[in-house]
Amino acid sequence: MTVQERAALDVPSAAPARVPTPAPGDARLARLSLNQKTVDRWSLKEAVEGCVAHGIPALGVWREPLQEAGLDDAVRMIGDAGLRVSSLCRGGFFTGADPVEQRRRHDDNVRALDEAAALGAPCLVLVPGGLPEGDRDLAGARGRAAAAIEALVPHALDVGVRLAIEPMHPIFAADRGVVSTLAQALDIADPLPPEAVGVVVDTFHVWWEPGVEEQIARAGGRIASFQVCEWITPLPPDALLSRGMMGDGHIDFAHLSRCVAAAGYRGDVEVEIFNADVWSADGDAVLDTIARRYVELVEPFA
Amino acid sequence: MTVQERAALDVPSAAPARVPTPAPGDARLARLSLNQKTVDRWSLKEAVEGCVAHGIPALGVWREPLQEAGLDDAVRMIGDAGLRVSSLCRGGFFTGADPVEQRRRHDDNVRALDEAAALGAPCLVLVPGGLPEGDRDLAGARGRAAAAIEALVPHALDVGVRLAIEPMHPIFAADRGVVSTLAQALDIADPLPPEAVGVVVDTFHVWWEPGVEEQIARAGGRIASFQVCEWITPLPPDALLSRGMMGDGHIDFAHLSRCVAAAGYRGDVEVEIFNADVWSADGDAVLDTIARRYVELVEPFA
Repeated sequence: MTVQERAALDVPSAAPARVPTPAPGDARLARLSLNQKTVDRWSLKEAVEGCVAHGIPALGVWREPLQEAGLDDAVRMIGDAGLRVSSLCRGGFFTGADPVEQRRRHDDNVRALDEAAALGAPCLVLVPGGLPEGDRDLAGARGRAAAAIEALVPHALDVGVRLAIEPMHPIFAADRGVVSTLAQALDIADPLPPEAVGVVVDTFHVWWEPGVEEQIARAGGRIASFQVCEWITPLPPDALLSRGMMGDGHIDFAHLSRCVAAAGYRGDVEVEIFNADVWSADGDAVLDTIARRYVELVEPFA
Repeated sequence: MTVQERAALDVPSAAPARVPTPAPGDARLARLSLNQKTVDRWSLKEAVEGCVAHGIPALGVWREPLQEAGLDDAVRMIGDAGLRVSSLCRGGFFTGADPVEQRRRHDDNVRALDEAAALGAPCLVLVPGGLPEGDRDLAGARGRAAAAIEALVPHALDVGVRLAIEPMHPIFAADRGVVSTLAQALDIADPLPPEAVGVVVDTFHVWWEPGVEEQIARAGGRIASFQVCEWITPLPPDALLSRGMMGDGHIDFAHLSRCVAAAGYRGDVEVEIFNADVWSADGDAVLDTIARRYVELVEPFA
């Protein structure tokens, strides 16, 4: 895809671009962050170079490509590029009932907090985990997730990284995330210190939640991360890859961005899209489209 | 499939049957209802005959096969068979913003209430409807659904059929049902007379809802219908056909059935499964499996 084609057509929709692509240095990009998973085929190095080339000043880092790159090299590479790390994805997976497994998960989350601290990331995104195989006790799994988060608070305080509880769309309640609403994530966070425990507001996960406006207001300073991506229909066949490019679906980004801004959030806005069509598209075209859709649909309201 | 094979193997799992198939007349089947959609290939006549053959005393009727059979003939056929109608599916689809479309939907729901009354169905199941094409105002769509339900109250009272609001899993919030939780359905029902407006508790739709136990207790006499089917993973590729046979997935039926019983519900328990594998299975094998899974997982607690 040529630079001209990338400027003219959005991906993956192939619809004509509705706004000019903002150039690197454009003030409207000051809070945009690329979550690395959005360009799943890129290495960490490629993602860093992509952010620099497109004027995206922050990166949401995933642990698997981080491990491939090596922590020290990654810290140096991201620092040399002048990028911020907006979050480390992901810790969590707390719902196993076996004490040995629980200990293993705790230790791994401690390591993840250390990695986040080394990267200068303000938060570690926590995916709560699903129901263990054959286990139908949802309340029990939710209770184990809450207890495991509480157990990580001292280390989070020690290293100055916030645990960011990610409520997940109920489509994932069985197999990925038993915390299903922002209200429920805030109930878990409530008794814990705000400097150690926050929440993720991800438009894909919470856009449908009745009273989400009140919950975002309630969250206030607990908002540790604001992630944007789209709910599209028909839902792609693989539920895990069902997220869309902002503007291609049903979410009112202006509305949710205004709510998050009114709650006082001034941090980075991460674009995180799991979608086979986005993943197979040209990475530079994906970043151009993201920049356009962001300045059109999100930034004026965030 | 022979009668022996049907007795030995569950469908669609092909797992060995875990309990003997209850015979027609078994007291444990007294509240079981077959929602017609579970045997989608069957005509109304075949569904009626299937219920009689398998000792299932009630039927959840759908409007499309009802129309094919003709209302008068259907009333006679169901009456002659000695079956109850547990619900008529479905009214609703209230979220269009165009006044002409709204009027058309209202009139169609009035007709559906009349049909339900003719069938002796206690309730008309209401699917709220999704976001209109290009419309991202979820609150607006929810408000229109609530207003449309209120407008049907006088006719519901006239004909003695309850409007049963079906909160739908958030997977359907964009394209099918904007009422996403039992709590939200009850908020809509609250100001309206309980004899005219109730709610559906469908395990597939509400099993993940934080605080669902409190909401079922709050519903109390508002519970107009209790429907059971399963949340299975991996989620089948077509979201509309993603429901499973009870026992094949993640839902704790004993827990939810106990909650519904504690709320005072004594009506029929409808099995409603939309699933390509169930639909392609032998209908009699489906009914045998339903009867077994019901007496194992639901009936002792309902």
